[in-house]
Amino acid sequence: MSAPQPFFHSRWVPAPAHTRDLGPDAGLPAGFRAGGVACGIKPSGTPDLGLLVCDSDSPVSAARFTQTATPAAPVLVSRERCRLDGLRAVLANSGCANAATGGRGLDDAAKTQGAAALAVGVDPACVALASTGGISHQLPVEKMVKGILDASTRLSADGDGAFQQAIQTTDTLEKRASLEVELNEGSVRLSAQCKGAGMISPLFATMLCFVETDAVMRPETAELLLGVCVKRSFDRISVDGQLSTNDTAILMCSGASGVQIAPESDEELRFGEALDALLRQLAIMIVSDGEGARRIARVHVLGGDSDSVEAVARAVANSPLVKTALHGADPNWGRIIQAVGAALAGRSGGDSVPAPLAVDLSIEGTQVCIAGAAISQDERALAQAVQGSEVEYEVTLPGEGAETEVFFSDLSHEYVTLNTEYTT
Amino acid sequence: MSAPQPFFHSRWVPAPAHTRDLGPDAGLPAGFRAGGVACGIKPSGTPDLGLLVCDSDSPVSAARFTQTATPAAPVLVSRERCRLDGLRAVLANSGCANAATGGRGLDDAAKTQGAAALAVGVDPACVALASTGGISHQLPVEKMVKGILDASTRLSADGDGAFQQAIQTTDTLEKRASLEVELNEGSVRLSAQCKGAGMISPLFATMLCFVETDAVMRPETAELLLGVCVKRSFDRISVDGQLSTNDTAILMCSGASGVQIAPESDEELRFGEALDALLRQLAIMIVSDGEGARRIARVHVLGGDSDSVEAVARAVANSPLVKTALHGADPNWGRIIQAVGAALAGRSGGDSVPAPLAVDLSIEGTQVCIAGAAISQDERALAQAVQGSEVEYEVTLPGEGAETEVFFSDLSHEYVTLNTEYTT
Repeated sequence: MSAPQPFFHSRWVPAPAHTRDLGPDAGLPAGFRAGGVACGIKPSGTPDLGLLVCDSDSPVSAARFTQTATPAAPVLVSRERCRLDGLRAVLANSGCANAATGGRGLDDAAKTQGAAALAVGVDPACVALASTGGISHQLPVEKMVKGILDASTRLSADGDGAFQQAIQTTDTLEKRASLEVELNEGSVRLSAQCKGAGMISPLFATMLCFVETDAVMRPETAELLLGVCVKRSFDRISVDGQLSTNDTAILMCSGASGVQIAPESDEELRFGEALDALLRQLAIMIVSDGEGARRIARVHVLGGDSDSVEAVARAVANSPLVKTALHGADPNWGRIIQAVGAALAGRSGGDSVPAPLAVDLSIEGTQVCIAGAAISQDERALAQAVQGSEVEYEVTLPGEGAETEVFFSDLSHEYVTLNTEYTT
Repeated sequence: MSAPQPFFHSRWVPAPAHTRDLGPDAGLPAGFRAGGVACGIKPSGTPDLGLLVCDSDSPVSAARFTQTATPAAPVLVSRERCRLDGLRAVLANSGCANAATGGRGLDDAAKTQGAAALAVGVDPACVALASTGGISHQLPVEKMVKGILDASTRLSADGDGAFQQAIQTTDTLEKRASLEVELNEGSVRLSAQCKGAGMISPLFATMLCFVETDAVMRPETAELLLGVCVKRSFDRISVDGQLSTNDTAILMCSGASGVQIAPESDEELRFGEALDALLRQLAIMIVSDGEGARRIARVHVLGGDSDSVEAVARAVANSPLVKTALHGADPNWGRIIQAVGAALAGRSGGDSVPAPLAVDLSIEGTQVCIAGAAISQDERALAQAVQGSEVEYEVTLPGEGAETEVFFSDLSHEYVTLNTEYTT
């Protein structure tokens, strides 16, 4: 499960010059401990409960949650009843989403929150909850309470690996990193543990991500940085266009380094660049680990306006026809034109349009369509260009002013097998 | 390729009492001739060019086209340059969509229109065009002109089967019917030939459908009846949520029976019921023949408002997670709750919502979720209930007033295989 390559390995995320990848065994930033155990939520007996603690007296944090209209109980409890700017702990589990579980689900979530607060000696309002797994099943509270106690005795500064394993479901790649970020006043540490492989989609992807740093910052800064970086990472990916009931991303700052990240400072910019690269690389790793994925792509959309580039990028990324062509390493770009036309149907499209939209398309830098019409090219070279593990499509709409991107995975037999057989 | 069962075979489309299925060999209504040939557009040598002619001196017709912003050349030519209320012929081809082909695509379409007009002796403005096949390739005009001449010599009153074969792509079921409709003043004939299996989606599905009748009606009546019936049939299905560049549905009336369908008459109602049932059954046959489909479903959404029921029905029908569960005969209804929550994210959802949406869900009449929370039930009986070839989900949103439905297919390995390997 350990990554055989440097953490920053996508061409779409260059490593910032002032960050250093410390490798998977560097442990957590100062002021953090974590652990993970198998408490029996998963019938397989694999790890399923993780605990993350910040030992600072005045921790600072920020959080982002799914935008779904049917949020899971842990999302509701965390969002409504936690001090999200001063979290001291996170209790996370896999094997059960605690979603569509009604009032009992909320009660059960509160019980596990209370147990975790007691076990680590903090106010329950400072314990965030996160769950992932099948929807519609009740949480096995008794098993979890035992697991919480067990995990609380195993917390350690290098427990991030065990914590990460405990939050995985269908993941096959380990998605975590420990970075050192050089700032003017000294260096700080930044680490993250992340899960996600399916039910990954718009409005910020189906995943859990926990980020720790020993930098000192105000709650507004944590809020700003997490908000901006989530928008540029987990909000820009899709495996299957499906929005989870449980998406959660939390940034926690222990302040143990004593290095300040002041608002609107050069430090903030440098730290923000590192956080941005970290979350973007993790987001791309989620897509690479998309259920059954063999190949991933970036669709970059320019021109038009902000609504049209967003609609087009999502339509291309979520098109099963584009995704199967990507899987088959087939340029088959007519399907991209189809997705563009569908995305803009009823806007500029429809019966009132006298001519097809003047869309340009290039694949891996080769222009294949200008103003809506195919141009001839070397078919063999084009077919060769889409064989790699990362493929880039650039769509230019008429007009100017907007730009966006979405990273997405292909659609494979393995996706169908996994999701036909993976049951609640 | 001939249907082994009666034409009206879905439980969702009862045969109207006043219609009689004449079987696949009954031929076209009086006043129509059709034919199909293989002219070499498809490398496989299978039929790829069809010609349909109405011999009436004063034919009446109506047409509906895709709403995409990137319509194919035949759609543009038909929509912009044809007398759509008085069509005398249709030239249809498979093997090439003539989409994303620019100015040359329009010229090529016009050439084939002119050739067809000459071959059957009518004004080019009375010849509608329809194409289906790969996007981005130019039409092989020379081959088509020869094919048009060939087809024009083979037109016959029972050529509907040959015509239908010529418009198929990945279809495996023959989608055509000949009905007799009893009206007060006598009976009329109603027949249709239809294709569609992939790139089937919202805003009226990816398909071609040609409907003929010997009834007499005014252009406004044809327009009204076709519009209403398309909205209730081809507009309510999805195989893969993809909107084609080429969707076309045409109703042609020869008037040869002499039986009048007067506006707002009982005749109009009865004829409309027959047309409605015909198009709904054909639409369901497209879904049943959805690429790789093993099982189909109807999602019926009630409550909420017209926007929310539409969004929810589309989200459920297009969810790859719901579709793989359907494929695996797995109730796994948490995925439906996920799709509902995603569809309404940002509407009633999001950070402002204090509790999950109070959605009810039943599967094949068994209630599984009330007010957003799972209720216990006989899991084995539920699993048994989703084994059939047609599965029904009913979603009830808070509030009242709206209702809609979408028919959709499952997502299978065969869909992935077909679309990984089927190239432009």
